[in-house]
Amino acid sequence: MMSKHIALKNIRINDPFWNDVSELVRQEVIPYQYEALYDRVDGAEKSYCIENFVKASAVVSALKSGEEVPVYPVDKWQYTDDNCDENAFHGWVFQDSDAYKWLEAVGYSLSNHFDPELKKKADGIIDIICSAQLDNGYLDTLYIINDRSRVFTNLRDYHELYCFGHLAEGAVSYFNSTGDRRLLDAACRFADLICDTFGENKKRGYGGHEIAELALVKLYETTGEKKYLETAEFFVNERGKKPYYFDVEQGRETTCDAYHYNQAHRPVRQQKEAVGHAVRAVYLYSGMADVARYCDDKELYTSCNNLWNNIEKRKLYITGGIGSTVDGEAFTFDYDLPNDLAYSETCASIGLIFFARRMAELEVKSNFADVAERALYNTVLSGMSEDGKSFFYVNPLEVNPEASRRDSRKFHIKPVRQKWFACACCPPNLARLISSVGEYAFGENSDTFFVHQYIGADVQSKLGEIKLKSSYTSDGGVKIEVKPNSKMKLALRIPSWCSGYELSHDYSLKDGYAYVDVDGEAVITARFDVKPRLVRCSNRVRANAGKVAVMRGPFVYCAESVDNGDNLQMLVLDKTTRFSQQGEFLIVDGWREKPSDELYSDFAETEKERCKIKLHPYYRWGNRGENEMQIYLRYE
Amino acid sequence: MMSKHIALKNIRINDPFWNDVSELVRQEVIPYQYEALYDRVDGAEKSYCIENFVKASAVVSALKSGEEVPVYPVDKWQYTDDNCDENAFHGWVFQDSDAYKWLEAVGYSLSNHFDPELKKKADGIIDIICSAQLDNGYLDTLYIINDRSRVFTNLRDYHELYCFGHLAEGAVSYFNSTGDRRLLDAACRFADLICDTFGENKKRGYGGHEIAELALVKLYETTGEKKYLETAEFFVNERGKKPYYFDVEQGRETTCDAYHYNQAHRPVRQQKEAVGHAVRAVYLYSGMADVARYCDDKELYTSCNNLWNNIEKRKLYITGGIGSTVDGEAFTFDYDLPNDLAYSETCASIGLIFFARRMAELEVKSNFADVAERALYNTVLSGMSEDGKSFFYVNPLEVNPEASRRDSRKFHIKPVRQKWFACACCPPNLARLISSVGEYAFGENSDTFFVHQYIGADVQSKLGEIKLKSSYTSDGGVKIEVKPNSKMKLALRIPSWCSGYELSHDYSLKDGYAYVDVDGEAVITARFDVKPRLVRCSNRVRANAGKVAVMRGPFVYCAESVDNGDNLQMLVLDKTTRFSQQGEFLIVDGWREKPSDELYSDFAETEKERCKIKLHPYYRWGNRGENEMQIYLRYE
Repeated sequence: MMSKHIALKNIRINDPFWNDVSELVRQEVIPYQYEALYDRVDGAEKSYCIENFVKASAVVSALKSGEEVPVYPVDKWQYTDDNCDENAFHGWVFQDSDAYKWLEAVGYSLSNHFDPELKKKADGIIDIICSAQLDNGYLDTLYIINDRSRVFTNLRDYHELYCFGHLAEGAVSYFNSTGDRRLLDAACRFADLICDTFGENKKRGYGGHEIAELALVKLYETTGEKKYLETAEFFVNERGKKPYYFDVEQGRETTCDAYHYNQAHRPVRQQKEAVGHAVRAVYLYSGMADVARYCDDKELYTSCNNLWNNIEKRKLYITGGIGSTVDGEAFTFDYDLPNDLAYSETCASIGLIFFARRMAELEVKSNFADVAERALYNTVLSGMSEDGKSFFYVNPLEVNPEASRRDSRKFHIKPVRQKWFACACCPPNLARLISSVGEYAFGENSDTFFVHQYIGADVQSKLGEIKLKSSYTSDGGVKIEVKPNSKMKLALRIPSWCSGYELSHDYSLKDGYAYVDVDGEAVITARFDVKPRLVRCSNRVRANAGKVAVMRGPFVYCAESVDNGDNLQMLVLDKTTRFSQQGEFLIVDGWREKPSDELYSDFAETEKERCKIKLHPYYRWGNRGENEMQIYLRYE
Repeated sequence: MMSKHIALKNIRINDPFWNDVSELVRQEVIPYQYEALYDRVDGAEKSYCIENFVKASAVVSALKSGEEVPVYPVDKWQYTDDNCDENAFHGWVFQDSDAYKWLEAVGYSLSNHFDPELKKKADGIIDIICSAQLDNGYLDTLYIINDRSRVFTNLRDYHELYCFGHLAEGAVSYFNSTGDRRLLDAACRFADLICDTFGENKKRGYGGHEIAELALVKLYETTGEKKYLETAEFFVNERGKKPYYFDVEQGRETTCDAYHYNQAHRPVRQQKEAVGHAVRAVYLYSGMADVARYCDDKELYTSCNNLWNNIEKRKLYITGGIGSTVDGEAFTFDYDLPNDLAYSETCASIGLIFFARRMAELEVKSNFADVAERALYNTVLSGMSEDGKSFFYVNPLEVNPEASRRDSRKFHIKPVRQKWFACACCPPNLARLISSVGEYAFGENSDTFFVHQYIGADVQSKLGEIKLKSSYTSDGGVKIEVKPNSKMKLALRIPSWCSGYELSHDYSLKDGYAYVDVDGEAVITARFDVKPRLVRCSNRVRANAGKVAVMRGPFVYCAESVDNGDNLQMLVLDKTTRFSQQGEFLIVDGWREKPSDELYSDFAETEKERCKIKLHPYYRWGNRGENEMQIYLRYE
């Protein structure tokens, strides 16, 4: 059964949990990032983002007036004062996307909470962006500033199609919330150039960092322009064919499977295992699912399903994180989910939510929204500090600050969130996801309204008005007032973690959703049992054999040493325990082992004493200074 | 109480366990390495070792006849056909040391088993080496071939003093067993040049890869030449002083602690923690102990003790391995002993045995020989396959072959031994250690003969004749026939792992040794209880909390999947178990969990069935094809 998410303009979020989070994004993250785009944040690494657009705009003017424009090398991922001319492009090759992601977040935010000051700021940035576009529609400041003659010559590394994708996503968001077409027109002009450049009997390339695929589909959805969908389809189908396009453009030949990192090692229809850079992977899979939907491509859908299953059943952290290694920020192999070495990038979980929504739209089955929920309430929210001012790029499941300082394998594991990153993908990605969370919560088709995530909101569906009040995150309660236009069904996801629930109305269960027939105005209530529970990870995962995790509702819990003392590995949870709640903490019975000082000794049961173990929601960890953290605990 | 090891020429090994091992070295490893030095091993990476000596010899001749000699760059660690002229030096900067280590092993081997053919081969190599020495005594083929003007200009990276150290060790070994002075004279001439070059009011440098320190002391012991000891002392004392010599020679200034990798981050007397490259570290500490002994330097001894304690109590794997990370092949921090990411280089455990002997000579306490035993019977022996034809460089405590193939963090973890390494340090190091194992087994001082390791041998001590018959590795039995010159004491180490033992004679215990007074000819027997036992690792080691290891006598045991099926993490050992022996295997009761297919599920005890767990001595693992291996097991 297919469905489609509800557009954000038809959703007004009103939820005790999410109001706070999205206000933090609106009041802290978006303004902070605005300053960062202009390099006005003290102590943060420079982004050069707006500076590059201004430089590109000058190049465009100069070209128009026939002036000679200098050429600089395009030969690396990062351009700094140390390695390039001061007038050349600066920053990472993908730096333009910072502005686009910010504009996308602003679009969503304005749609939920109109703010004329913010719109003015955004309009100013859009002016600068539009003035940097070449006459032929090309818009990527790296090549415009440094070397116009070399556009589209290194698709593998230099992120032009990636920046285009974020431009298109930003443009669609901004257009949808404000009706302002300027950025959308710019995106369409660039898209037109891309469609003219790539395809059968044209350049056979595709982006090294995927996103253009799903972005072109968004442009197609917004404008109805068929060629955008066709080019998305082309990118998807061309990827991984031999001879490898990346070989062709690099002028060399590689052996088999050279491009796992880019998911371009074989045609996507032959891919069954999620591999390579995790963010790239889920962006690609999202685009594949989009193309499968609009092109009614069953084979492609099967591929999406295979890849989804591989992630969901074998490569997913309990926190909804993906990516088990820092090397290539990548997937490794089935059931390889190390806690202390996880990469689990915030952006990757965001991309997983994109993929999940598209899968759920293709076929409404609750496992998609279950996984999205896992990612949303744990890894995504963990990405941001409680004051909205610092961020995790990497979301480990176990942290020892000493290891982060002294073991080079764990330098990427930060025990506290950081202010800003030179490679600033996660904070803007967080901002856009949280500002558009409604798009992931609800769906509809010709006769059914779907509640995928229990987020309080007033929703204008084609089927009628739906008012959802939620205390889901605190007590599992939901109340839904429905004013249907005519007969309709309300489909409520039964969370996979939920062992007991009550629904006020009769329902039938299908694929994890409870379907309630609604004939006229109705108030439907549901309550999901959110009592804390022990969760077992498959013993195929070596790191977790003999251990247990604690969850409550959608939240994973963790122990922090600020609450439990150092050496969290000495804690043992009493599996017969009863949990009690203490504010945001869970208290469980357990033991604390006494440290055994001899490195090796004859076996004896380690002495231990009863203790209360205090657990914190994972997404809240690391907000009280540097300390140890651990999700999985031994039990007895 | 000080002591000194017994020189190899006074020891004739005759031991059921060690005869086999040293015969393997004599019959397989030494001949194989001889061929490797000449690049005559099919499929092995070229060593270029003899080729470089031949080239250097031609340079020496050319210089003598006043011919012009070309200059090539000295600017990298490895010189290949791809990055240098065919007439230039080839291979790694330390390639000369391959020949020296081989000669050292040959020296030891000839002393235990004279073989004229082997001596002839060694003499041939010594001819080539001697012909490559410059008139001033300098002998390092990299600089002789490539650029004579730049000798001693990059002590940090280019291993001249390291190669010198191995030359001296090889020379001493060869001289001691054959009486042939040629290599010793060459080493002394080079040592003279070094002593003239380095010191107070001279160049204030020291080697980036330590070994010259202990090697100079060996030359001093062999020749009585005091300046060798003085220069060793200078190298030890100068190391880590500010301004850093490595900064001076590189012409730059680094911030604090730039040279942890080289143990040159601070003066050695201020070093309390073992850091950096593990092999370099223990070579340095060995040299420090030598200097402390001969210079009666109490402060330096205290430093050695601190560093020893840090390793023994906090940085030592149960297998006697050291070095927890591949990055820099280095120590990390206290109690960081990951099983599946261990580096635990064979050479590092060999170096640890060097350090242990020197510490035991400074003060006879059993923990030194205990650690040496742990290293010897586990990591060192594990370094070589049962046919002597392939080798482990890295000795992990847990291996999943899929991880070694697919997780770049574990590419250094090989599930089967390899034929030969381009950086061929471990096999020749193994050969020299095993061929000289007697030097680590016995010691003496004015009134006591010490048995540190129970290796069967006929020993000519200053105190008399000692004939040791050992079945230690199989049943813990030892029989020692003593023919003393006059009254003496026999000191027998009580292994730390031994909970019960019997001794035929009265004894008094001191620092882990049982002292028996011997008045005349006597036969002393001892039996150490080698029943299999469970060993607990301190719960400060995160990787091993809740797990147990199995040992029998000095041997650590491990599970391999060829015996126990895949997914060794699903094994649970029954802690009430009785062990039974089956050939070289131990059989213990336990359970095998059924695989839980759901990645996450509500907690339930994992179903499991009784099974027999089959354990293999660690040093024997990986001899039956690629398979999983695990030392620590969960228990119930």
